[in-house]
Amino acid sequence: MAEKSPVVAAMSEAELDARHAEKMRKKKAARDKILATKTVEKGLVIVHTGKGKGKSTAAFGLVFRALGNGMRVGIVQFVKGRWETGERAALERFPDAVTITAMGDGFTWETQDRQRDIEAARAAWERAKALIMDDRHDLVLLDELNIVLRYDYLPMAEVLEALRAKPPMKHVVVTGRNAKEELIDLADLVTEMEAVKHPFRSGVKAQKGIEF
Amino acid sequence: MAEKSPVVAAMSEAELDARHAEKMRKKKAARDKILATKTVEKGLVIVHTGKGKGKSTAAFGLVFRALGNGMRVGIVQFVKGRWETGERAALERFPDAVTITAMGDGFTWETQDRQRDIEAARAAWERAKALIMDDRHDLVLLDELNIVLRYDYLPMAEVLEALRAKPPMKHVVVTGRNAKEELIDLADLVTEMEAVKHPFRSGVKAQKGIEF
Repeated sequence: MAEKSPVVAAMSEAELDARHAEKMRKKKAARDKILATKTVEKGLVIVHTGKGKGKSTAAFGLVFRALGNGMRVGIVQFVKGRWETGERAALERFPDAVTITAMGDGFTWETQDRQRDIEAARAAWERAKALIMDDRHDLVLLDELNIVLRYDYLPMAEVLEALRAKPPMKHVVVTGRNAKEELIDLADLVTEMEAVKHPFRSGVKAQKGIEF
Repeated sequence: MAEKSPVVAAMSEAELDARHAEKMRKKKAARDKILATKTVEKGLVIVHTGKGKGKSTAAFGLVFRALGNGMRVGIVQFVKGRWETGERAALERFPDAVTITAMGDGFTWETQDRQRDIEAARAAWERAKALIMDDRHDLVLLDELNIVLRYDYLPMAEVLEALRAKPPMKHVVVTGRNAKEELIDLADLVTEMEAVKHPFRSGVKAQKGIEF
């Protein structure tokens, strides 16, 4: 919209208004036509991946939207310490509607112990499978599952099998960089968060309320 | 990680563990070194743009993270009806910490009335400016401001001026497709949400808890 053609620039406000109304009418008609074809209701497998920020944050937004709608949510964190502060405190406002499981000590850069990571991943995954199959939860968030899959701490085949066997209306959200192709193929909705600009580059540190 | 070199494939579990520990030690050292240089604390201008899903949802996640941290949040919605259901119900759990303003009837495809949209945008922007300047709010979300800027309903210069004049510790989050270059230039953190796969393509409709 930044570049105006000479024709548009010469239009009066009234002409601009009429042109706008016509354009919006057409857009709305096109949009209504598309929406009418969308009739399927089903639980979605949603993947947030990419190197940018917002993967877990958007998943967290989905969790609150679901909670606000009276849905029940199960969360498994595959990376330690990610939801320790702001998120947990906010989730405590919905004590009966949400369960959170953290993966043992979780995968962290602190660990450096592959066998312990593999065991923790296995325990967290067993919990995740139970939540996926359990009808009491409408939405299950597997936060940073992709990092565990990337390090081959869990067999991808087992994860795909559980997602294929999920109750039809259950939503499952998977986050983390480097989502594997097989998971993307199976998913209904995949969003890649791409970093256009990051404040770390100018020396800004992680801050309360933004990063944690 | 999917492709293993013949050397790695031939390694014993113990060798893999040792190799992993060494790799993680190096990663952690590199990461700690970078983190030590991040010392600046400041309020950020954050932009979520792109054609994918998750722009408002991630902003909504930031809002809850901030609320969980005891921060106070102001929200102005520049598009009608976006936060009507799940989000609003969830935000009601934090009655003293959040204020929400919707832009008149808001911009919708239903309107088709350019003058009314411009007036509504102006009123919402005046409210947004007050929230940005008001020390009682730590984070201000201007949801879908980009659409208003895209249609030139507000002068970009005025928006940039307000963002430059904001209190130093205040965070401002702007969402919406087609973020303009001037805003991206000014922002500290810009994430582009890119749609890799969307369930609309297979006839799935917008669903409670996911889309609204």
